[in-house]
Amino acid sequence: VENYIPAELIKKKRRGSNHSREELAYIVNEFTAQRLPDYQMSAWLMAVCFQGMSEKETSDFTALMRDSGQVLNFKNTHPLVIDKHSTGGVGDKTSLIVGPLAAAAGVHVAMVAGRGLGHTGGTLDKLESIPGLSVQMSLSDFQRNVVENGIAIIGQTADLCPADKFIYALRDVTGTVDSLPLICSSIMSKKLAEGLGGLVLDVKFGSGAFMKSFEQALVLAKSLQNIGKHNGLPVTALLTNMDQPLGQFVGNALEVGECLQILKGELSPSFADTRELSIDLASHMIYLGKKASSVAEGRTLATKLLQTGQAFEVFSALCKRQGASSLNNLPRAKKIFDLHSEAEGYIVGFDTEMIGVASIILGAGRTSAKDQIDPASGIECLVKIGSKVNKGDLQFRVHGNDSHRINEAMNRIRTAIRYSSAPPAPTPLVAKILF
Amino acid sequence: VENYIPAELIKKKRRGSNHSREELAYIVNEFTAQRLPDYQMSAWLMAVCFQGMSEKETSDFTALMRDSGQVLNFKNTHPLVIDKHSTGGVGDKTSLIVGPLAAAAGVHVAMVAGRGLGHTGGTLDKLESIPGLSVQMSLSDFQRNVVENGIAIIGQTADLCPADKFIYALRDVTGTVDSLPLICSSIMSKKLAEGLGGLVLDVKFGSGAFMKSFEQALVLAKSLQNIGKHNGLPVTALLTNMDQPLGQFVGNALEVGECLQILKGELSPSFADTRELSIDLASHMIYLGKKASSVAEGRTLATKLLQTGQAFEVFSALCKRQGASSLNNLPRAKKIFDLHSEAEGYIVGFDTEMIGVASIILGAGRTSAKDQIDPASGIECLVKIGSKVNKGDLQFRVHGNDSHRINEAMNRIRTAIRYSSAPPAPTPLVAKILF
Repeated sequence: VENYIPAELIKKKRRGSNHSREELAYIVNEFTAQRLPDYQMSAWLMAVCFQGMSEKETSDFTALMRDSGQVLNFKNTHPLVIDKHSTGGVGDKTSLIVGPLAAAAGVHVAMVAGRGLGHTGGTLDKLESIPGLSVQMSLSDFQRNVVENGIAIIGQTADLCPADKFIYALRDVTGTVDSLPLICSSIMSKKLAEGLGGLVLDVKFGSGAFMKSFEQALVLAKSLQNIGKHNGLPVTALLTNMDQPLGQFVGNALEVGECLQILKGELSPSFADTRELSIDLASHMIYLGKKASSVAEGRTLATKLLQTGQAFEVFSALCKRQGASSLNNLPRAKKIFDLHSEAEGYIVGFDTEMIGVASIILGAGRTSAKDQIDPASGIECLVKIGSKVNKGDLQFRVHGNDSHRINEAMNRIRTAIRYSSAPPAPTPLVAKILF
Repeated sequence: VENYIPAELIKKKRRGSNHSREELAYIVNEFTAQRLPDYQMSAWLMAVCFQGMSEKETSDFTALMRDSGQVLNFKNTHPLVIDKHSTGGVGDKTSLIVGPLAAAAGVHVAMVAGRGLGHTGGTLDKLESIPGLSVQMSLSDFQRNVVENGIAIIGQTADLCPADKFIYALRDVTGTVDSLPLICSSIMSKKLAEGLGGLVLDVKFGSGAFMKSFEQALVLAKSLQNIGKHNGLPVTALLTNMDQPLGQFVGNALEVGECLQILKGELSPSFADTRELSIDLASHMIYLGKKASSVAEGRTLATKLLQTGQAFEVFSALCKRQGASSLNNLPRAKKIFDLHSEAEGYIVGFDTEMIGVASIILGAGRTSAKDQIDPASGIECLVKIGSKVNKGDLQFRVHGNDSHRINEAMNRIRTAIRYSSAPPAPTPLVAKILF
């Protein structure tokens, strides 16, 4: 290891200079080995928050975090392993559909998923609402499962990107989470460590996403894609609208229920958006995984695999392998309260983050990593942007186990709808695709 | 203590908001009590480096650091205790003159001085070059000395501003030293803790100072003065030119020797600037200490106290009280090398910082707080800006104990002079006074 003086490296970033790969290697490796103390790392991270990182720095930093732990390698088994990653939204449950759907098309799917934090949910929490199901698996079992069974979904393990784990934990308590290069490198380091041959990104924008504007999301998507490009990973990014909850349900077991209906080929206007977006994402996974010669062909295939129930069979087998006893005994909330419209007109917008916050209040999400989840609670959304409502129309159902929490959640949801006398202009769910 | 979430306070400063006094109290007090971890403090300090602090925040932060330890109080004995503080320069030895001079005029002088770091020297290192002299004293002994004997000079103690001590140590290793509000609050917290009734600041600018331009020094001076104002301490700030070494000598025992000559009333063009600046600073101390009804009267008094040797008597007694056996046995370097001019013309400028660096190479200063000082080594400057020199004229004498170091120092000094065929316009030593 080159012997750098940490304070000098911090000052270099503070004045806005770019680090060499060797300097970044020193920072990542010495910090992971606990030789670079937390107090120097956090000062450096704050300097990065203000001065940013160049494209090359971000790519180098990401690769160094990837290499801090075990890196999966499918080259000798099945090189074209695909994953999908979402930047997070309210009611975003597509992973549970697109994984099995792409796998049903013959794509090898490796998913290292996350837990919910803040107003957005996490795939792991949703899966764990299925009684018996476990997302704990060693990386070698995970790799074997992907190769042999075509799909596996796990949470982050101790040996996957430990540098990212330690750095994120420090960022969380030092006000340095919100930084584009740090966010992008954290996401992509884990994806690169999966040994993927292709990645489909669902980059969300709007009132229910972290990025409130399309422009912010575009910058994020391009940065994520660039990191992939610099490190040899093809990335397709869909920029998708998160101005309203996705689908009918928000909350873990409730969302699993919605996915099961879609996987079984059921159609309903309440979750038509979830189904459409899932088909979109899966078609890109199928194309990247070379099981279709065009995205359009992938779409046709994905639609068929939903209709025939083949995607459901893959999901069902996946759940069984990972310990689920049945898919028919999802937890249900003790209380369901209806929420009726107090206004009339066209719904023109939602404060979707507020609906996410209401779901946290019900117990469906976390504000801190230590919070416990109530898997049964959540919110059912029966109206969409463009819906015409009259006073007294049923708009939401709130599922919960605690009356006080339900009341508080309902008060939040009431404030989260905007009405107008004129219908809003329709907006596409997928705003842009970056190949 | 109000229960703040540290990461939220860090984010507040990161986005450029101002902290309340309560928030700053939480940060300072919890950090000093080791309940706020280093990694959160360093992230916050880096955010301060980028976002700054308002005048009120800086004053509050300073007062909170002052209150982290023992605060001296002369109200029941002699309320009008005065100190002088310099922001540091090459050959700046005026503390050793102005302290005794003001004390000889009847002012009570309390000096908590610092050590040299980087290209500027420190009063404590200079004093300690006097055999036997100690700057270690308990705060209560210091206070008693000031009251009973009119003057005492010590170094920072463990119980004076511990918050500043801990914060500075963290800043030193996290690239967060260079920040105006952090620099100002660090200086002023210690001055406020001395329980002063008035402070004279010597804020230096030019090639031998930390602030290279007058404008930067003016900002620093105003900020220091404002902190005093907000906390009830009258501060007079002199902005003084540091474009060339002050006086004849740079180096600890050599500078003490120069001070002894001035205190004994000797006159020489080589140290006329040291003497002039000392009289200026002392006249403001005497005026602030109400031993003269005007600064001009203070100047007359100070000049007389040098001529009569009364200031020398005060210094001599001070040194004796603090352990010095004699003032006639200062250490001397084994080797003295002459440096002659290789050019001819008028000297129009010095790279004064380079001369400071040369003195560090000789052993007269430190690059790190752990470095040992060689008290005898240093540089004798026999030319000034405006001097007309011919080839072969003696310009410097280098005092050292190691030939290799002496050669390296001489190479630096050779590059540190700028010549011109025309004489430079004269510039005043004191550029501005802020009352």
